[in-house]
Amino acid sequence: MNNFTFHNPTKIIFGKGTIPKLKDELSIDQKVLLLYGGGSIKKNGVYEQVMQALSGYDIVEFGGIESNPQYATCMKAVQVVKNESIDFLLSIGGGSALDATKFIAAAALYESGDPWNFMNDWDSIKSALPLGCVLTLPATGSEANPNAVISRAETGEKLAFINAHVFPQFSILDPETTFSLPERQIANGVVDAFVHVMEQYMTYPVNAPLQDRFAESILITLIEEGPKALQNPRDYDTRANIVWAATLALNLLIGVGVPQDWQTHVIGHELTALYGIDHARTLSIILPAVLKHQRRSKDDKLVQYAQRVWGAREKDREKLIDIAIERTVGFFKQMGAPTSLGDARLTFDDVPKVAPTLEKRGANLGEHGDIGAKEIAEILQMAATA
Amino acid sequence: MNNFTFHNPTKIIFGKGTIPKLKDELSIDQKVLLLYGGGSIKKNGVYEQVMQALSGYDIVEFGGIESNPQYATCMKAVQVVKNESIDFLLSIGGGSALDATKFIAAAALYESGDPWNFMNDWDSIKSALPLGCVLTLPATGSEANPNAVISRAETGEKLAFINAHVFPQFSILDPETTFSLPERQIANGVVDAFVHVMEQYMTYPVNAPLQDRFAESILITLIEEGPKALQNPRDYDTRANIVWAATLALNLLIGVGVPQDWQTHVIGHELTALYGIDHARTLSIILPAVLKHQRRSKDDKLVQYAQRVWGAREKDREKLIDIAIERTVGFFKQMGAPTSLGDARLTFDDVPKVAPTLEKRGANLGEHGDIGAKEIAEILQMAATA
Repeated sequence: MNNFTFHNPTKIIFGKGTIPKLKDELSIDQKVLLLYGGGSIKKNGVYEQVMQALSGYDIVEFGGIESNPQYATCMKAVQVVKNESIDFLLSIGGGSALDATKFIAAAALYESGDPWNFMNDWDSIKSALPLGCVLTLPATGSEANPNAVISRAETGEKLAFINAHVFPQFSILDPETTFSLPERQIANGVVDAFVHVMEQYMTYPVNAPLQDRFAESILITLIEEGPKALQNPRDYDTRANIVWAATLALNLLIGVGVPQDWQTHVIGHELTALYGIDHARTLSIILPAVLKHQRRSKDDKLVQYAQRVWGAREKDREKLIDIAIERTVGFFKQMGAPTSLGDARLTFDDVPKVAPTLEKRGANLGEHGDIGAKEIAEILQMAATA
Repeated sequence: MNNFTFHNPTKIIFGKGTIPKLKDELSIDQKVLLLYGGGSIKKNGVYEQVMQALSGYDIVEFGGIESNPQYATCMKAVQVVKNESIDFLLSIGGGSALDATKFIAAAALYESGDPWNFMNDWDSIKSALPLGCVLTLPATGSEANPNAVISRAETGEKLAFINAHVFPQFSILDPETTFSLPERQIANGVVDAFVHVMEQYMTYPVNAPLQDRFAESILITLIEEGPKALQNPRDYDTRANIVWAATLALNLLIGVGVPQDWQTHVIGHELTALYGIDHARTLSIILPAVLKHQRRSKDDKLVQYAQRVWGAREKDREKLIDIAIERTVGFFKQMGAPTSLGDARLTFDDVPKVAPTLEKRGANLGEHGDIGAKEIAEILQMAATA
């Protein structure tokens, strides 16, 4: 096992009917900015529950945060924070609203020029406004981590930042708020969480059996519960298990002391930034190609994954690796997610800018840092057809 | 899944050579009280490493904290804290030193009379001095939870308290510091961690597959790594895996949203308080009897445990339950732990005070709250012979 530091101070308040607990987490003298997306929270009753919980509080609202939240939108919210002397940011929605909230929290107190700078210099963030969230979409794990991903339309960039100052102080996870999600968002969330686990697991063994088994536990749970959520969208326990799985998939716990990969995410972010594909769908397209491309360097873990997650009993290692990749593709298909560029009606020639853009940024991806522009192009070629 | 709140703010610094990081966690203007036990840290080099890391700091020492730390000892330390205007408590050692440190941290700021009062009124603790630890014995999980157990010789009591103010700010876990532990302490630690998991797992199913699988992950890891640590005490990865398993066994994570038991601990604490048996050894004596006694009410989980943790493939449920209990006993024996009162050279008649003492305290133990004095006596009778 490698050395590590683990510190996750976010308070998780989990379960049905927990939104009223908001008032225990916020002081009445804090001026709160409510941040949300396109308004689905006004249709599914979440907005009303939040407003009821915060009755008597001094609240300002900022709606209209888009999927793949934009720098320009965030900067408008930063202006509101400054004009209104906001003390606390409360995000309501999924990972997009929350990631934007994290950027805004850090940008509002940033003193080293344009906040976009900190996307390339995470440690330059020295403080952030306190923030919390009411989560309505299980997927990104943003509710219990210090990560955020922000896009910038004018430059075609989609970049992540990580800084401990933007851990949510609290996150309220009421699985009932996810009942009204469209099928595609349920599927995207399950796939996103699944790939978060794979990025921290599918590397090479370092004698860390607990991290491996925790990762496998989350994968198996998503494989069991994901299809149930599509079949029976109002089953509480199914939703609860998916919400908790998605949080644990990226609350930093399973990745401690082990190598991590993240190439699927980095390549996927470019497909979203340049070609507008849903985040989770970029992952279900790219991951199978990454596994095929690196079946040699990831062989021990592919075999373990085939055996423990998919219950494969074959003796032959090559056969086990085949099964590992086939079953992963099969699961994504079962969730209705594309597993090739072709499934998204694209060809290799439709995505010419990904490899050069990542090369320009000096990408050395993968757990060994040996995936450069040439390999990224090979992966995209492999992703062309399932 | 049941509703829950999960909040664990302790920073874990894990790995070989991490003791020098102490200086990043303590401000030079804090006056630090170093708390430790019988002096083994002066033999194994840990004391020296700590003093080197804290060179230049204003340090006071308080040694001599016993196993099953005593109220009287803690109160002496509280006097030192007050006389010396201590700002921070740094525990070095295992769960005993750390639990004492937690009591002292709360007692030093307690304003509602004798600090022993808070053992029966946990919420009366309104603040505590900040504390941290350098852990040298994996077992209790105290390094990442708000729990402590304190004994009082003059009344024969051994009681636990739980309060969020006593979470360690940080815990440094260097597995190399555990190399010099005697075999009995290694075994005790593994058994203690194992039973912590069982108390949060071996109840009844509530459709919480992730909590179940995380618990099973820790049990399997302890079953695999525990015997290896006895065979090869200086294998770093084995020790690292045990240390991390013991922390995760009781950092509150696996117990969220599920019923919990803790009857083995409560009965075991009496065996220690009244008859001086090692804590872990009371658990390995009592747990098998609890499983036998409650094989009906715990049946679904016993079957699942036999299948998933012990890999049993039998079809018959009664047979699976037998296997669950037999293998648990077998594992404790493999670790050199007693599994009956007889193994500890005691009979049922030697422990007459346990049931009446717990009855006086109004004990309604177990996940259903239906284990009273009569049942405790039955359990002890069953524990008489293996």
